[in-house]
Amino acid sequence: MPASIRCLLLAFVVACAPAAAQTPARPPTMQQVLDASKPSDWRALDPQNTLYLDLPAGRVVIELAPAYAPRLVGNIRTLAHERYFDGLAITRVQDGFVTQWGDPDAEDKAKAKPLGKAHRTVPAEFDRPIAEEPPFAKLPDGDVYAPEVGFAGSLPVARDAKAGRTWLAHCYGMVGAGRDVAPDSGNGSELYVVIGHAPRQLDRNIALVGRVVRGMEWLSSLPRGSGPMGFYEKPEQRTAIRSVRLAADVPEAERTPLEVMRTDTPTFTALVESRRNRSDDWYKVPAGKIDLCSVPIPVRRPPARAGG
Amino acid sequence: MPASIRCLLLAFVVACAPAAAQTPARPPTMQQVLDASKPSDWRALDPQNTLYLDLPAGRVVIELAPAYAPRLVGNIRTLAHERYFDGLAITRVQDGFVTQWGDPDAEDKAKAKPLGKAHRTVPAEFDRPIAEEPPFAKLPDGDVYAPEVGFAGSLPVARDAKAGRTWLAHCYGMVGAGRDVAPDSGNGSELYVVIGHAPRQLDRNIALVGRVVRGMEWLSSLPRGSGPMGFYEKPEQRTAIRSVRLAADVPEAERTPLEVMRTDTPTFTALVESRRNRSDDWYKVPAGKIDLCSVPIPVRRPPARAGG
Repeated sequence: MPASIRCLLLAFVVACAPAAAQTPARPPTMQQVLDASKPSDWRALDPQNTLYLDLPAGRVVIELAPAYAPRLVGNIRTLAHERYFDGLAITRVQDGFVTQWGDPDAEDKAKAKPLGKAHRTVPAEFDRPIAEEPPFAKLPDGDVYAPEVGFAGSLPVARDAKAGRTWLAHCYGMVGAGRDVAPDSGNGSELYVVIGHAPRQLDRNIALVGRVVRGMEWLSSLPRGSGPMGFYEKPEQRTAIRSVRLAADVPEAERTPLEVMRTDTPTFTALVESRRNRSDDWYKVPAGKIDLCSVPIPVRRPPARAGG
Repeated sequence: MPASIRCLLLAFVVACAPAAAQTPARPPTMQQVLDASKPSDWRALDPQNTLYLDLPAGRVVIELAPAYAPRLVGNIRTLAHERYFDGLAITRVQDGFVTQWGDPDAEDKAKAKPLGKAHRTVPAEFDRPIAEEPPFAKLPDGDVYAPEVGFAGSLPVARDAKAGRTWLAHCYGMVGAGRDVAPDSGNGSELYVVIGHAPRQLDRNIALVGRVVRGMEWLSSLPRGSGPMGFYEKPEQRTAIRSVRLAADVPEAERTPLEVMRTDTPTFTALVESRRNRSDDWYKVPAGKIDLCSVPIPVRRPPARAGG
């Protein structure tokens, strides 16, 4: 039976065939770019910047972004050290928007879990000076929301060169710190992840603190909450959080070793090109363009052998 | 505890307060636009163009798009009349991409369910002449992929005026007909819905046939398949389809009455503006822009009384 899917599978198989099987005129597929990547195209996650959100279904791995939200990331490290999140819950899943977790009793002063040594308020970290940004790889096709967009430190970013400001973009899988009306009211004790089309209107209005690099399905496939904005209406509908740990606080044998593709390399440029112009037989009209949140940032388990 | 969410809820409450409570300088919120809408801003779903996908968890309502894929919509009507989909299954859920349903045995000629009077192949309906398009409301902020984008017939569309062509855009909730490598190999017996960030690279490469207007959560929150491209690896992992029916084939008492907002009205223009520039206190930097797939197309149950 006709299946776009089956064709994509065929394309994948073709991509695994020897390069000689490709006609020279075709740009490489993403799989060919990945297969040709060098060890230096990847970097291991830093245990100090890696958060494990362990749910009953599995582990979610989040790479934190201290270059963009240093104070919030510091607060989140403190909360994880102190096991603040253990036993709390996923409180909200709004279809096509966000999944959110934290203390269901946060608004009840008598029952709210203490924040320990963490700061109650954190000055807004909605954007940063461009001068302090990691190396920036600009995407060629523009953006509806910002003067320019691209990648820095393996994260999707938007920039306004005239204003000298840069900020993380609300793409699928990006993690942010919920806040109240006051800009400094987000402190990292309540986090959300984007599970639908990129809600870019949130950019520069709330601080993103990292990106899910593994286990996104455990956050995106949860039952949607039936209350306003996707909040669960009954406590038993919530998913319990087993623990949230900084990887550095976890014994090495219990860590999840992962590497993320660097975005400041010719290999990443080739990967973007492979997605701008799909070269397999299934595509009849290659887009010739790509938007920021459609570019995958590859993640892999480290190869078994050096250089593998 | 700080919660972006809580603030948005506050904004909602404010929006329900008398208009006098708003300062005159603020543009209306989306809720205010909806509250001020007239009966003529809405249209009832046409039972001939409405498909009910009944799953164990609930009903998914799909509005078909005969203006863009007349032959495929015709084939889907035939398949629904003949109860082709009943007892088939959701076969694939790929995180951040698509959920797909059809005949798990489609590739096995001995076991595949017969297509009855439906056509085995359907000429490609990937784009259409602009001259035949319903009234088009252009979005003001441009698009990464197409010369212009906007809405026609309550659907997100992209256009190339020079080429005289228009096509439906792969936004969240859009439904398409899977196909094989041959452009005419899609026949509507295998359908998919977008469950992540808009995969616009599919535009003009595969035919979209409609949009989910109710029950999206029953398709987006399913467990992800662990096989290649999100296919389920074991039959028992699939979700069974109870039935797929054209609303016109269902007794009126069993229908789900819904109205969709028209997109060729000043009210819809005001709604777009309310999303381009959020006016509630939570937003510090209104985006001032919006991308095609971030514009909601409101759906409601018909008001109890005329004009209500």
